[in-house]
Amino acid sequence: MVNDVRRVRDDEGSAPRLLALSDGVFAIAMTLLALDITVPDGLDSAGFAHALGEVMPKVWAYALSLVVIAAFWRGQYQLFHSVRDVDGTVIRLVLLSLGLVALMPFPTTLLAEYPDLPQAVAIYSGAVAAMGAVQLTLAVVVWKRPWLGTSPLPDAIARNDVADLGATVLVFAAAVPLAFVSPTGAKLWWLVLVPVRFVTGKRGKRLREAAQRFRA
Amino acid sequence: MVNDVRRVRDDEGSAPRLLALSDGVFAIAMTLLALDITVPDGLDSAGFAHALGEVMPKVWAYALSLVVIAAFWRGQYQLFHSVRDVDGTVIRLVLLSLGLVALMPFPTTLLAEYPDLPQAVAIYSGAVAAMGAVQLTLAVVVWKRPWLGTSPLPDAIARNDVADLGATVLVFAAAVPLAFVSPTGAKLWWLVLVPVRFVTGKRGKRLREAAQRFRA
Amino acid sequence: MVNDVRRVRDDEGSAPRLLALSDGVFAIAMTLLALDITVPDGLDSAGFAHALGEVMPKVWAYALSLVVIAAFWRGQYQLFHSVRDVDGTVIRLVLLSLGLVALMPFPTTLLAEYPDLPQAVAIYSGAVAAMGAVQLTLAVVVWKRPWLGTSPLPDAIARNDVADLGATVLVFAAAVPLAFVSPTGAKLWWLVLVPVRFVTGKRGKRLREAAQRFRA
Amino acid sequence: MVNDVRRVRDDEGSAPRLLALSDGVFAIAMTLLALDITVPDGLDSAGFAHALGEVMPKVWAYALSLVVIAAFWRGQYQLFHSVRDVDGTVIRLVLLSLGLVALMPFPTTLLAEYPDLPQAVAIYSGAVAAMGAVQLTLAVVVWKRPWLGTSPLPDAIARNDVADLGATVLVFAAAVPLAFVSPTGAKLWWLVLVPVRFVTGKRGKRLREAAQRFRA
Repeated sequence: MVNDVRRVRDDEGSAPRLLALSDGVFAIAMTLLALDITVPDGLDSAGFAHALGEVMPKVWAYALSLVVIAAFWRGQYQLFHSVRDVDGTVIRLVLLSLGLVALMPFPTTLLAEYPDLPQAVAIYSGAVAAMGAVQLTLAVVVWKRPWLGTSPLPDAIARNDVADLGATVLVFAAAVPLAFVSPTGAKLWWLVLVPVRFVTGKRGKRLREAAQRFRA
Repeated sequence: MVNDVRRVRDDEGSAPRLLALSDGVFAIAMTLLALDITVPDGLDSAGFAHALGEVMPKVWAYALSLVVIAAFWRGQYQLFHSVRDVDGTVIRLVLLSLGLVALMPFPTTLLAEYPDLPQAVAIYSGAVAAMGAVQLTLAVVVWKRPWLGTSPLPDAIARNDVADLGATVLVFAAAVPLAFVSPTGAKLWWLVLVPVRFVTGKRGKRLREAAQRFRA
Repeated sequence: MVNDVRRVRDDEGSAPRLLALSDGVFAIAMTLLALDITVPDGLDSAGFAHALGEVMPKVWAYALSLVVIAAFWRGQYQLFHSVRDVDGTVIRLVLLSLGLVALMPFPTTLLAEYPDLPQAVAIYSGAVAAMGAVQLTLAVVVWKRPWLGTSPLPDAIARNDVADLGATVLVFAAAVPLAFVSPTGAKLWWLVLVPVRFVTGKRGKRLREAAQRFRA
Repeated sequence: MVNDVRRVRDDEGSAPRLLALSDGVFAIAMTLLALDITVPDGLDSAGFAHALGEVMPKVWAYALSLVVIAAFWRGQYQLFHSVRDVDGTVIRLVLLSLGLVALMPFPTTLLAEYPDLPQAVAIYSGAVAAMGAVQLTLAVVVWKRPWLGTSPLPDAIARNDVADLGATVLVFAAAVPLAFVSPTGAKLWWLVLVPVRFVTGKRGKRLREAAQRFRA
């Protein structure tokens, strides 16, 4: 069979160890995001109350990046749900995405400390867009190489995932130039993704349920 | 069967990878808690002895948070003992609880550096109450969705777990306003949980043993 | 059978997840040890060469703690080799040992920065002795509860492991008062463990081989 | 059979837990590399733009070390692909390699902050050469002990892996003295590895495919 010939040609190892490395990087990046949230030592009561107020933007930036990283983790988790083998291309793409995830604490700190500077908002948007672009490529690669998995991803689900990630990349990439016009505008523009992802999320859930019911 | 129809409707992936991410975050949070315990460089012998004394509150705060985080880890470990599949709600709740666990080094440092300030004690109490509330929700969700697991959680065990977590949430939530009356009082109030958890722990152990004996 | 009744009475969960948490803490502690090795920014060529010399004690302390932590990891790895279930006592002891492992970067930094101060050497010795004491207790507990494992640990192997850990605890505990007499003497005293562990290591290897040959 | 007798003599435990520890250290080292990328707080717009420019060498050093660490991870991943058991020598070598991986953030920071100082380039080169030498030893040990794995590594593949790692060690070891002649020259010299690894990579892929086709 064609698939078998191709599997012989391509697979390099099993997915679990790559995903273990991946879970490790995601877990550490999520935890390091919070490392920045600190209050100076030795303040008096009033100074402490003031410092707590100062720390709030960092808490918001932490919450935002946590949502972003958790969303990417969940996307990757769904993507590799029925993947058993990985080849060189998949390994390279996963490692590249991990390199970007590990970088996230940097733009998060920028955003927390310079929420009104165009460059900070642009760098944050660019970092998320880059993560999205790598994950999008990964999704397409996995979709087009069904021999890596135990069961091929139905085209309707794959197309919905690609649309979801494509929208993420477009919105955050467009936010890069937008940030130089208006940093606040760019941050509001991010919110466009809330309804978009709500729709693709609902559709994805419905499609996955249908596929499972079909198989059962 | 009803359960099967529901399983088709709900499950999104297998539990192990979610728990691997979770173990990673718990492990890192436990280790980062200790990162704060430092002594300045270049002191003389007397200064060093003094600095060691200064570091003791941080060691105590570390020990306290270690116990808290370890207790939450163990609760989650028991909760997912016979869970095989996870759905979107469970994934979101676990990710939320991980975000709170990753935050713990912050209130721990506050408590170590400002043990007598009401806000520090209130924030610490609030953080633990929030973790407890998320874990409580998670426990109820898992209990009410038996199709996620290999064997349904007996109602008596589930009710005991809910009582245990509910008591944790109540005690720490009540400590938030209490801290503004008396920070030391709020910290002593935490100790109420020691006998409460002792009782629920004993009962839980007895119930689990009975359930296992019944199954065997 | 007696063992079965007891298993029903005692086990709380499976070992793998506890060991995954454990591996996470060991991995992070090992990596954080090295975080301290830094050179200030913005030095000229001569200042940089000088700073590199200053950093050497930190590199040695890192190497020492790495060997210590790696030895404890390997001991725990061997101990849990054929353990399948864990009960509340084992979980508590493992979590306690993880709390001590996570603390190790602190005494390591003390030793690197104050290699000649009695307190620093005493704290380092005490930390290692404490880790050893917990692991020793864990070894005895696992040995006395054969129903937790797939095959009982032969008494000869268990006794050798206990001797090995007992020697570690004794040497490092004796180094605590010794450090106040002579910090350098206490550090030389640690070296007593090299021949001791060499002998117990050889014996342990021989006993494990014999046990395997017997089983095969 | 000879292999079986030897297996009885040598194996100490199963590979997965050692690899879990290893994945943890790799994941943390990869993430901590990025921790250094920061911009000071409280700058004005011009100062921020300047600080972003200053941060770029750190981003490049991060990217370089990420590629290096990811390449070592992938090499180890391939090496342990069909390894099931590990003995004392393998465990010691893996732990030693993890100690070197955990150190990588240090030479990375040196290279980012002192890109033109001979010592910084020499230390970075030496660290990579040391990692390569340990991995080379590990590859030879695994190759010569086929009883550790599920299927012996074909000699042609093993020889190609050894050539690949040998070239890495030679190039980085030679860069150590070269750095004292010309730091920039040493960094350009590293690029020699790009075509070398391209060739060994292609050959390794072809050999692995042939071995798989043969087995299928």
